[in-house]
Amino acid sequence: MNVVFQSPLVGLAGQQSPTQVGIITVSDRASAGEYMDMAGPALQQDVEQRGWQVQSLALVPDEISAIQQAVKSFAAQGCGLILTTGGTGMAERDVTPEALRELMRVELPGFGELMRMKSLELTPNAILSRCLAGVVESSLVIALPGKPQGAVDCLGFVADAIPHAVKLARKEPTSC
Amino acid sequence: MNVVFQSPLVGLAGQQSPTQVGIITVSDRASAGEYMDMAGPALQQDVEQRGWQVQSLALVPDEISAIQQAVKSFAAQGCGLILTTGGTGMAERDVTPEALRELMRVELPGFGELMRMKSLELTPNAILSRCLAGVVESSLVIALPGKPQGAVDCLGFVADAIPHAVKLARKEPTSC
Amino acid sequence: MNVVFQSPLVGLAGQQSPTQVGIITVSDRASAGEYMDMAGPALQQDVEQRGWQVQSLALVPDEISAIQQAVKSFAAQGCGLILTTGGTGMAERDVTPEALRELMRVELPGFGELMRMKSLELTPNAILSRCLAGVVESSLVIALPGKPQGAVDCLGFVADAIPHAVKLARKEPTSC
Repeated sequence: MNVVFQSPLVGLAGQQSPTQVGIITVSDRASAGEYMDMAGPALQQDVEQRGWQVQSLALVPDEISAIQQAVKSFAAQGCGLILTTGGTGMAERDVTPEALRELMRVELPGFGELMRMKSLELTPNAILSRCLAGVVESSLVIALPGKPQGAVDCLGFVADAIPHAVKLARKEPTSC
Repeated sequence: MNVVFQSPLVGLAGQQSPTQVGIITVSDRASAGEYMDMAGPALQQDVEQRGWQVQSLALVPDEISAIQQAVKSFAAQGCGLILTTGGTGMAERDVTPEALRELMRVELPGFGELMRMKSLELTPNAILSRCLAGVVESSLVIALPGKPQGAVDCLGFVADAIPHAVKLARKEPTSC
Repeated sequence: MNVVFQSPLVGLAGQQSPTQVGIITVSDRASAGEYMDMAGPALQQDVEQRGWQVQSLALVPDEISAIQQAVKSFAAQGCGLILTTGGTGMAERDVTPEALRELMRVELPGFGELMRMKSLELTPNAILSRCLAGVVESSLVIALPGKPQGAVDCLGFVADAIPHAVKLARKEPTSC
């Protein structure tokens, strides 16, 4: 198993409790060094432009145990939001949904529904996606597609609901 | 366990077999008397304005067994439609979907999909909802959000499909 | 058990590997000869107009084992796409989703979501449908409604995603 945990990045000092984000690229070939991971860096840039703070990055193969280990590690580090990219298709090696469902206390079907519905405006193949989201420990976990642009697009489709969802996952008091 | 079953209301005599409705408010705090249940009465008023007949009301805490007991009781009383309000979020005490899924013969995913899709026009947080519907015994059961306005809105989004669904759940002959 | 397998039709010689389609009508009454199957022929005509090739047809009752036997048989015959019509409602005899889910390696929720969303433009009762899709062996399996027009309409709503999905199910190389 080839799990690469990169060094956490340091956020801006003094920022008022931004969302701490962990990003996990799920890819056999990128984790084997056959090509460079593009989706992780694309998501990192997008997340930082939103004013959220990338706390941890990981690159894991399409293996249930490797995916779960990375998610549990990031949840234990206090990431309020954990994004995965890759492994949500219908190929035999695509096991991200299976890996995450075993860990989720609750699944939130609206994330996948909205990501597919909005992606349909870009491609009819959007309905092949098994993107999903749910709560693992006190973290919101969202499984995004593997293509860099698809991952960034899908994050954008659900981004407005993330701050409230992260608060609820962390059991912080909210107005409702 | 603090289950309050209120007296059934008497419908209009002579009305041609209206849909008999049971309404269950699921809330720890309302059932403990910490605040007054607003969602149940809001749903009751809305249901009666639709010409349906509210047969039974209940107020139960966010406990799987209490929710299930109320649903089974209302199904046994012959409610063709059972509405719940509350417990569909992502907090640890939100267990209405889990309680209902154990009882459902079939789940009807289109209800939750439509409620979330239409609610998205009102708030991006709509995708956090785990609203759902399905058949328990011979009753259609729909789990609505806990906020009074959200419950009434979501009922409205799916209302046009309810008469046919109730007939199918009751195994009454239909044109298809 | 009354399973009728009709003779496979022969496709156009020389056609470049068209999608080979199996069509399964699921209906107690049609398989008992109480009325003529209209949905299967309607789908066959629609499929052929798309330039795909109907390889096999079957007519089975609403029985889990009969549905599964037909699907497995068509998958073994090499049908890249298997369409079922019927048994996706909420009646007690509607068991097509249960039959298929037991066979599916992965379920693709976007197909059912899109079929319901588009059907809503035609009827509010669209949310009662439990249409679904997924991968069985190396075949894409799509469960369509039982009414002939509904089956053809729903196939049309998802048709643009089928060629790519069939390739992925068959593990043929694709551009992504």
